[in-house]
Amino acid sequence: MEPASESSGYVQSLARGLAVIRAFDESRPEMTLSDVARATDLSRAAARRFLHTLVQLGYVWTDGRVFALTPRVLELGFAYLSSVSLPEIAQPHLERLVSRVHESASVSVLDGEDIVYIARVPTSRIMTVSINIGTRFPAYATSMGRVLLAHLPAERLDEFLAGVRLDPLGPHTVGSAEQLRAELTRIREQGWALVDQELEAGLRSIAAPIRDRSDQVVAAANISSHASRTTGEQARENLLPALLETAEAIRADLRVAPRSASAAR
Amino acid sequence: MEPASESSGYVQSLARGLAVIRAFDESRPEMTLSDVARATDLSRAAARRFLHTLVQLGYVWTDGRVFALTPRVLELGFAYLSSVSLPEIAQPHLERLVSRVHESASVSVLDGEDIVYIARVPTSRIMTVSINIGTRFPAYATSMGRVLLAHLPAERLDEFLAGVRLDPLGPHTVGSAEQLRAELTRIREQGWALVDQELEAGLRSIAAPIRDRSDQVVAAANISSHASRTTGEQARENLLPALLETAEAIRADLRVAPRSASAAR
Repeated sequence: MEPASESSGYVQSLARGLAVIRAFDESRPEMTLSDVARATDLSRAAARRFLHTLVQLGYVWTDGRVFALTPRVLELGFAYLSSVSLPEIAQPHLERLVSRVHESASVSVLDGEDIVYIARVPTSRIMTVSINIGTRFPAYATSMGRVLLAHLPAERLDEFLAGVRLDPLGPHTVGSAEQLRAELTRIREQGWALVDQELEAGLRSIAAPIRDRSDQVVAAANISSHASRTTGEQARENLLPALLETAEAIRADLRVAPRSASAAR
Repeated sequence: MEPASESSGYVQSLARGLAVIRAFDESRPEMTLSDVARATDLSRAAARRFLHTLVQLGYVWTDGRVFALTPRVLELGFAYLSSVSLPEIAQPHLERLVSRVHESASVSVLDGEDIVYIARVPTSRIMTVSINIGTRFPAYATSMGRVLLAHLPAERLDEFLAGVRLDPLGPHTVGSAEQLRAELTRIREQGWALVDQELEAGLRSIAAPIRDRSDQVVAAANISSHASRTTGEQARENLLPALLETAEAIRADLRVAPRSASAAR
């Protein structure tokens, strides 16, 4: 789908240039001009212009044949991180939580229908994909996403549930919007969410909301564990108290933060 | 300085759009249209076009008056991180190192005259600025930068030393290119670098090279401490052995990594 035309002020070359940056990933760390043109649906001539501009700006490196991103690209992502205070405030609390429970802990925010990781302290890797700051997952299948959806304004939740497509990502992924709505009501009442192998087999995780000084839920924190290591009951008994304390400690620090720490829009 | 003209294939609107993203930071998390125009040296009309394009693409949020970045911007920075394997390989080794020495540890690569952090496990904050993945510092004033400069090919080092401007960032910053060259020779021979309050007062740090499977130095790892907590001698005796072991362990993992982990170009 093509967005609004140039006449309305849409700058297509900015959109295309950003698409060129995003075309590089784990499976395509280095690409030739033809690879980039193919990955972005651009003509070779257009792909060449964008690549050479990115090379001049220092975001892309080339040996004349292949192209790759440079670490300067990180500046773009971190323009966001440095513009919100939550990741920095949350990080030491996550470190303490992980040293207590010896499982990975994270903080994420809602962006559209996805959660996006903004702080994370990993221990051993459980999932088949690696999780970084910036990693996105569908909110409906994750414990942090459930917490964030549960605290949406009613109209936005209705909109979300009306439009959501629930893919069976894990062996126990929720099957219908009605089931999901019932679960979200329960989560809102109990104040935390447990998700058992809905995103991926073997992954069990528990999440709690993080509120800002006006009591709005702006983010969620979670602890994830391998299902074979932690039953649902063990998660509630052993992990939940430490998680709720951590969410409360982050909230207390947000209250004294000098500027709005809201990362959820 | 204006780069090459459009006729040579330079896409100015991509450059300007990226500048709009980078205009947001800790001191300017939210900006009005006029703020953005001022920060980027664009006309209000141009700033409006770029902002509205970024809003349509989901990278910028607005309430109609102020604009702010969304977490989607992280995807851009993490296009780089997911395209190199070193950060992911290094992270668990840094975690283990920090649990042994109880000081912050990091990995960075050289990008032009700067080091860029690509992995980090922080403990207590020492510096006046916060350090994130993507943070840049002048290579000459940092322990990791010294290690990386020390292993540049001779011609590139000559070029660097001929052009470098040594600002007195800390109380002990190196004063001349000749002094720096002598120090780099010593670092190359001894295999590590100690930097004492050259980047900022109170900061002492020690760094070691990380080599890839072809024995090229592709990154550096360091441990940083407050100068009042750790003398230079204590850094050498208490921190260096663990640091060298960590660098060696990362190297061993890089050797078996399925694809090139080189992050230094």
